[in-house]
Amino acid sequence: MKQDSPDMDAPFSRQAKRFQPIDHAHVHFTEGFWKSWQDIVRDITIPTQYKRLEEEKFLEVLDFKSPPAPLARPIQPSGLSMQHFFDSDFGKWIEAASYMLKYQRNPDIEAKIDDIVAKLSEGQMPDGYLNSWFIRREPEKRWTNLRDLHEMYSMGHLLEGAIAYFEATDKRAFLDIMLKAVDHIITQFGTEDGKLKGYDAHAEVELALMKLYRLTGEDRHLQLARYFVDERGQMPSYFDEEARKRGENPDDYVYKTYAYSQAHKPVRAQEEVEGHAVRATYLFSAMADLAFETKDPTLWIALEKLFAHMTSKLLYVTGGIGSSGDNEGFTRDFDLPNETAYAETCAAIALGFWVSRMAQIDLDSRYTDILELIAYNGALSGIARDGEHYFYENVLESHGQHRRWKWHYCPCCPTNIARFIASLGGYVYSSTDDAVAVHLYAASKADIMLSERPVRITQKTAYPWDGDIRLSLDLDESLDFTVHLRIPGWCDKASIEVNGEAINLSDVTIKGYANLTRRWQRGDEIRLILPMPTVRLYAHPDVSEDFGRVAIKRGPLVYCAEEADLGFPPQRLRLPAEAAFKASFAEDLLGGAIVLTCDALAADETNWGNGLYSKSKARMMETTLTAIPYHLWANRQKGGMMVWLQEEA
Amino acid sequence: MKQDSPDMDAPFSRQAKRFQPIDHAHVHFTEGFWKSWQDIVRDITIPTQYKRLEEEKFLEVLDFKSPPAPLARPIQPSGLSMQHFFDSDFGKWIEAASYMLKYQRNPDIEAKIDDIVAKLSEGQMPDGYLNSWFIRREPEKRWTNLRDLHEMYSMGHLLEGAIAYFEATDKRAFLDIMLKAVDHIITQFGTEDGKLKGYDAHAEVELALMKLYRLTGEDRHLQLARYFVDERGQMPSYFDEEARKRGENPDDYVYKTYAYSQAHKPVRAQEEVEGHAVRATYLFSAMADLAFETKDPTLWIALEKLFAHMTSKLLYVTGGIGSSGDNEGFTRDFDLPNETAYAETCAAIALGFWVSRMAQIDLDSRYTDILELIAYNGALSGIARDGEHYFYENVLESHGQHRRWKWHYCPCCPTNIARFIASLGGYVYSSTDDAVAVHLYAASKADIMLSERPVRITQKTAYPWDGDIRLSLDLDESLDFTVHLRIPGWCDKASIEVNGEAINLSDVTIKGYANLTRRWQRGDEIRLILPMPTVRLYAHPDVSEDFGRVAIKRGPLVYCAEEADLGFPPQRLRLPAEAAFKASFAEDLLGGAIVLTCDALAADETNWGNGLYSKSKARMMETTLTAIPYHLWANRQKGGMMVWLQEEA
Repeated sequence: MKQDSPDMDAPFSRQAKRFQPIDHAHVHFTEGFWKSWQDIVRDITIPTQYKRLEEEKFLEVLDFKSPPAPLARPIQPSGLSMQHFFDSDFGKWIEAASYMLKYQRNPDIEAKIDDIVAKLSEGQMPDGYLNSWFIRREPEKRWTNLRDLHEMYSMGHLLEGAIAYFEATDKRAFLDIMLKAVDHIITQFGTEDGKLKGYDAHAEVELALMKLYRLTGEDRHLQLARYFVDERGQMPSYFDEEARKRGENPDDYVYKTYAYSQAHKPVRAQEEVEGHAVRATYLFSAMADLAFETKDPTLWIALEKLFAHMTSKLLYVTGGIGSSGDNEGFTRDFDLPNETAYAETCAAIALGFWVSRMAQIDLDSRYTDILELIAYNGALSGIARDGEHYFYENVLESHGQHRRWKWHYCPCCPTNIARFIASLGGYVYSSTDDAVAVHLYAASKADIMLSERPVRITQKTAYPWDGDIRLSLDLDESLDFTVHLRIPGWCDKASIEVNGEAINLSDVTIKGYANLTRRWQRGDEIRLILPMPTVRLYAHPDVSEDFGRVAIKRGPLVYCAEEADLGFPPQRLRLPAEAAFKASFAEDLLGGAIVLTCDALAADETNWGNGLYSKSKARMMETTLTAIPYHLWANRQKGGMMVWLQEEA
Repeated sequence: MKQDSPDMDAPFSRQAKRFQPIDHAHVHFTEGFWKSWQDIVRDITIPTQYKRLEEEKFLEVLDFKSPPAPLARPIQPSGLSMQHFFDSDFGKWIEAASYMLKYQRNPDIEAKIDDIVAKLSEGQMPDGYLNSWFIRREPEKRWTNLRDLHEMYSMGHLLEGAIAYFEATDKRAFLDIMLKAVDHIITQFGTEDGKLKGYDAHAEVELALMKLYRLTGEDRHLQLARYFVDERGQMPSYFDEEARKRGENPDDYVYKTYAYSQAHKPVRAQEEVEGHAVRATYLFSAMADLAFETKDPTLWIALEKLFAHMTSKLLYVTGGIGSSGDNEGFTRDFDLPNETAYAETCAAIALGFWVSRMAQIDLDSRYTDILELIAYNGALSGIARDGEHYFYENVLESHGQHRRWKWHYCPCCPTNIARFIASLGGYVYSSTDDAVAVHLYAASKADIMLSERPVRITQKTAYPWDGDIRLSLDLDESLDFTVHLRIPGWCDKASIEVNGEAINLSDVTIKGYANLTRRWQRGDEIRLILPMPTVRLYAHPDVSEDFGRVAIKRGPLVYCAEEADLGFPPQRLRLPAEAAFKASFAEDLLGGAIVLTCDALAADETNWGNGLYSKSKARMMETTLTAIPYHLWANRQKGGMMVWLQEEA
């Protein structure tokens, strides 16, 4: 019989159910890990970031009435000054601040934002154009270099900020400015005669437009995002044409290939992840949003291939991506150097954006396992425990040369990690009319609407230090729905009880989610136990930097050895193949954390002598390895660090 | 009793004997390894390098009568165009060509050199100034930027070329030009009132002036070199003053510290090797020449410290130095990355210059072992076996991304390796009135004068493939003198017979040289046997890139594993701790070479699966390791290479 009914399970089928994200304001972290990080972000990170924006002259760019001040950042060989996209930085700060305002209004912060908005309003050109660089310095050059100068990228971040601020406060001024700016873009770009067939080399506005579409429901917002995605990488290249218009030779492009911006071929023809890691993952996030809204299977098919390539060839064990500083991005397969890892904080966060969107279309823990991975490791490592120092590059090994900084030459990461932590509640759950999916575990209370019926879910847990999670449901009246619980890929022996009754996981688990369908009652309790033994991980043998080495993981946390604990460089360590780890909670360590200890060996350099090379190996002596969660490294004294430790063969 | 007689053994004592170098023209390689390389250099390298100089517009800079052509190399952020020092490149080519002309005149080559000399003569300014960039492009800017623009560096290389050409042909024209240029420098630079108290940031002219002094015996040539060495690093810095004169802020210096040029403090106060590796070793070579000629102990003491630091902290096992491309030089102690090793060919050669000069003052195999090391490994790897492709960076590991190039953006290395191989005979011996020291072993015939009495030494050996060396002496009449034979540091079980009679090496060996003093007769034969087992070398445990790894060496040759032999990337290899090596001569391998084979293990990636990380290690399968001499790598198909192989713990 011919199968002509659609495959309901295929994620790209037009009938497949989509999981809608939950507004993070409906998820409150009540105690423990994420509560402490959100408190830090609210109390320290957001205020100090504003201070930095002032001190570093980022806000000066909004003094539209004054003549331009000297450049705060000089022009690079690429033609770009970091100042070209200062708008994006305060845009992201507004977004982060607004996410916390959703939980708790704050007149002081709002006054600061209102002031920025007032200046933007003054500066915006009558036709809606908005970019502080071009308006003040080179109005005649606006829209002449989408390849290098980040105009739409900056507008995208302002737009995300405006949406967040509107949602947090109901104040419309910023949103109205950005709606006007979007309408201006619509008049300038598109396939119609007289419009520029361009798109920004740094993807961002696409996903911002999808957010806007979800707010406004206006088809033109969706269509603009769709246009940008569809046009990207079409040949002949817009960037070639644009360069020629500027009187430049397109071959002089400093990054040589438009793969740098995922614009070397149409997005649906891209099968391997290439180029700048943040550009790639912002783009893929927008593609996933479009696939979600338009149910376009061709986008989904491309995303699936790109995801498979990235996760099988290009992903650090911490969730970091983009191994090279040269292109801030991807290189050859399996090229994952540790000490020179770029693994930009923004890229890990953007990977989180992408995979969480993938899981909205296809509920599969392959995606959300990576969300958890970056949240606890490769993204969170980007912020110090003091809430006001940062990493841009998240290396997996150091000889002590890497220190957290207060502010960066290109400070895209600080506001990104702030907005990510501030909105993390939005990643914990997603829902359909008759289902709620639980992606992350954290002590929290959430209010979720299923078919207009409220469901409150309370999680009690010491996660990520412990894998015992109790979820209790509070409903006005009993309701038929499914609870999908992510069973983390790192966990071999998960178990579930519902109201004390064991569930056979293999019966109910599909694509890494245990699916509990029943008529739920007020007071129902689900207990999920995720045993967290310390495990050793090995890399594919073609990741040659890690060959002969081992990474230590406990639950969702990657661990590292830091000189601060060892008293000597971790590079001298060798882990015995069989040594057992002991986990203990260190109350005083940077807010409290489980540390791991283990018998180990270390090269004894004291009796090596003065030569560099010898026919004899260094003597090994017994020592104790202490390992701490990777995200907590570089919060104490200067020293070496290693994630991938040498192991006895 | 007070010891007031000088210590005759202390190398810096004014009475200590100095070993004079032997002109390489008196040493003929008769067959085997170095004969084949010199033939290649004469027949292929020197002619093709001239062709490149033409094709790449290096010689165009000498068309002084024409208006300047468009730049062959653009200006860099440092303010330097590589074209600023094109003179140095044809200077070094003339030097290399002249070294071969000493063996065999060649009218075609000489015509080319004479043409260059004629153009230089036309271009030289009336006051003697000579630099093609400044004369043609910016005569008003001459001597205004010694920090960045290599004026004296270029003149130094022209001077070395002029000396070599004069010695090879007795033609004086080039030498006269350069004598006039040196006299011009003397009028401009020095401590006297009205002169500039400057020196070139890139050392080179200093050692060229010492060569000139040895040719002319003119004290002013010695004094100029001495001035440059003594003035270097004196504070306040000349480079600061010069920058201010140009209207620049000295703090804007692109390399941040004058340690980049060994000009951060006076040379005698420098205790650690820092900065640009070629600058450092050219400078140290000149310091050694000065210490030799002036018997200045303060220079010797500084050189000893610098040598100890370099060899105990900063030397690759191949003899390469300068691990970082960022400063083309040294970083922190023990920072010897393999795949990103800079280890510039020029730096290894310049290290050879330096250590051979150290051994002239203090006959110690610590120095000449490194001469041998670079000659067979880290310098020789800079030229392909085809004689016309090169490496600038001599990495110790590759995933196949490193390929030899035909010509380089900054082609300092090709002519350097050419002049080094062409003059290698000059490094084999040195002599005093009553002694000859043998530093290198190679099938050769040499004519050496000891107190005006000729001694011919013939070496018969298949070195470096075999350590059996027969030296026969040919004298007109019997003569009392000492033969000092280097006993390589790599050799544990050397033995010597003189005319069939065994010598007790421990009785006669001082600082790594076996000293055979007797009345030598015509026909005396020394047989030196240097057993060459294959050995495993281990690095200091703080060279963290090499921890858990092993390097393979046989005699003077460092070996490597190359994908061309293995059929898979050598990064998958693991060497069993006990496996024995088999050495066999491969006639067809790139001119013939000993290859080493050994049972080994390799990670089997075929059954790893699709993930990047796993709780299980990769399965290891049995394989055979084939290793070839390091200097021969990258002469066949593209692929990975490793010097430091992973070893079972």
